[in-house]
Amino acid sequence: MKALCLDAGVLALRDRAPPVARSGEALIRVAMAGICNTDLELARGYMGFSGVLGHELCGVVEACDDARFVGRRVAGEINIACRRCELCKQGLERHCQARTVMGILNKDGCFAEYVTLPVCNLHRLPDGMPDELACFLEPTAAACEVLEQITVLPRDRVAVLGDGKLGLLAAQVLAGTGCELTLIGKHEGKLERAAKCGIATCMLVDAARKAFDMVVEATGSREGMALAIELTRPRGTIVLKSTYHGAVALDLAPLVIDEITVVGSRCGPFAPALVALGTGAVNPIPMIDAVLPLSEAVSAFELAARPGSLKVLLDMRG
Amino acid sequence: MKALCLDAGVLALRDRAPPVARSGEALIRVAMAGICNTDLELARGYMGFSGVLGHELCGVVEACDDARFVGRRVAGEINIACRRCELCKQGLERHCQARTVMGILNKDGCFAEYVTLPVCNLHRLPDGMPDELACFLEPTAAACEVLEQITVLPRDRVAVLGDGKLGLLAAQVLAGTGCELTLIGKHEGKLERAAKCGIATCMLVDAARKAFDMVVEATGSREGMALAIELTRPRGTIVLKSTYHGAVALDLAPLVIDEITVVGSRCGPFAPALVALGTGAVNPIPMIDAVLPLSEAVSAFELAARPGSLKVLLDMRG
Repeated sequence: MKALCLDAGVLALRDRAPPVARSGEALIRVAMAGICNTDLELARGYMGFSGVLGHELCGVVEACDDARFVGRRVAGEINIACRRCELCKQGLERHCQARTVMGILNKDGCFAEYVTLPVCNLHRLPDGMPDELACFLEPTAAACEVLEQITVLPRDRVAVLGDGKLGLLAAQVLAGTGCELTLIGKHEGKLERAAKCGIATCMLVDAARKAFDMVVEATGSREGMALAIELTRPRGTIVLKSTYHGAVALDLAPLVIDEITVVGSRCGPFAPALVALGTGAVNPIPMIDAVLPLSEAVSAFELAARPGSLKVLLDMRG
Repeated sequence: MKALCLDAGVLALRDRAPPVARSGEALIRVAMAGICNTDLELARGYMGFSGVLGHELCGVVEACDDARFVGRRVAGEINIACRRCELCKQGLERHCQARTVMGILNKDGCFAEYVTLPVCNLHRLPDGMPDELACFLEPTAAACEVLEQITVLPRDRVAVLGDGKLGLLAAQVLAGTGCELTLIGKHEGKLERAAKCGIATCMLVDAARKAFDMVVEATGSREGMALAIELTRPRGTIVLKSTYHGAVALDLAPLVIDEITVVGSRCGPFAPALVALGTGAVNPIPMIDAVLPLSEAVSAFELAARPGSLKVLLDMRG
């Protein structure tokens, strides 16, 4: 099969043997998959990953022990846990220390014609949900994770910092709480796309300092954390979503002086994401820049990395 | 009067006019004062402070509008708030953006024969509490702040990282919760002094990684935060107490990947600190290295900065 591989830092479309589903796993024929900022960071060296990239997918189960899934359209959770350790027993499977992560850690991803996942990671998709929408389940779940971790009240002044893919999803998820929400970014074009989804926006230079009860740091950039600290009020909360390769120089004293709380936030629950996308509460369609065939995956990465770009999808049937 | 001043980075004992108490303020004749790690950092440039250093004091009120305080032994809270702004109205006077801070921000401190403080900042001391003990009220309050911010359960595995002054106080405060507590440090001598207070201790090299539900980062050093991240379990909590001059290079990805919460923590409530010191639940006396007269304040700073040192007190009557 064709697969987009990262090997020793080189991104290339290669011929690979299709994966084989073991007991408890499903073989999924990938329909469509989304390029995430994490994929761009992996290509820059984050996590030291080698193998097939890709972790936002929808597809059809071709083979599987569990008859309920064969022939069904599915999306899949990306963390593959041991389900035996103490963290797994506490319901923290996404934090299993023996986990692999599809397309990120010791497990080939979905920028390929086929991928395997444990059946317990699968979510069946509603018939009416288009593939383009289903590809946003995984990042929307990551946005929903914020509300699993933090209680947001209607009187709260909340900023989502970063007008990229995750920022636009997080803003739409948080808007559902009725809080006083502002998406803060640097790109007028991206902020306009957010405004089309009904989100209040603000250019970074115009954003009030020390004014927000909560700031969701979704910039994906090294400067994001320091900016988030500037925007947060004393005793406020920063939700840190960005991951990138390498260290950042940071003055931590303001966190102590202003007694700010920082909450690291990664993958999230698929069930509320299915509801949010299914009901239209989150509408990611205006974020799609292009749908390109797998054969053009390297160009698709270049397009996704371009300033001003939002979501680029790969169609594996093309 | 004699006062230990920091001017353009130079620490020196100087002659200064005594401060004058304005309406609502008390003029305090300082009896004793403690040298804090923050004082050492201020001398290195932290906060860009100039003036009389010192913020851990006990003394006697010589003049004051409020007759209840005249002639009384007191300790004092260090944040001087406007008591009119939104943060003050919310009970967050310690975060007032117009505040001054005794010996730290736009307000002369207590390494002097006299200091002034608003009467509402004063706490009367029990007659039986020695001056040496009363000097620990302010840092013990800072240790108590952790329990104002975080609920610690008896089953929690808690590490205090850093065997310095604040670490030893925080360990004693947290021991009162009945949690599974370990003080982690690098100095055998300091850990022995903690053990004398009944605290379980561990050398840093022997500490288990990703093993603690909560880590109180009280190292006072640039390496502390990265070490705290290493020690904290997925979904665990770091309480960040250290303040120091300058930026630190930090890989923030583990905070996101392990969904760690970081809680900045600064000054705390005096009332529980009075109880803890008064009942002996916190016993800082084994931490005292020396009591030196104000005339030897510069040498006292050098002693306080020496590796292995813990608390050095200044006696203003000497």
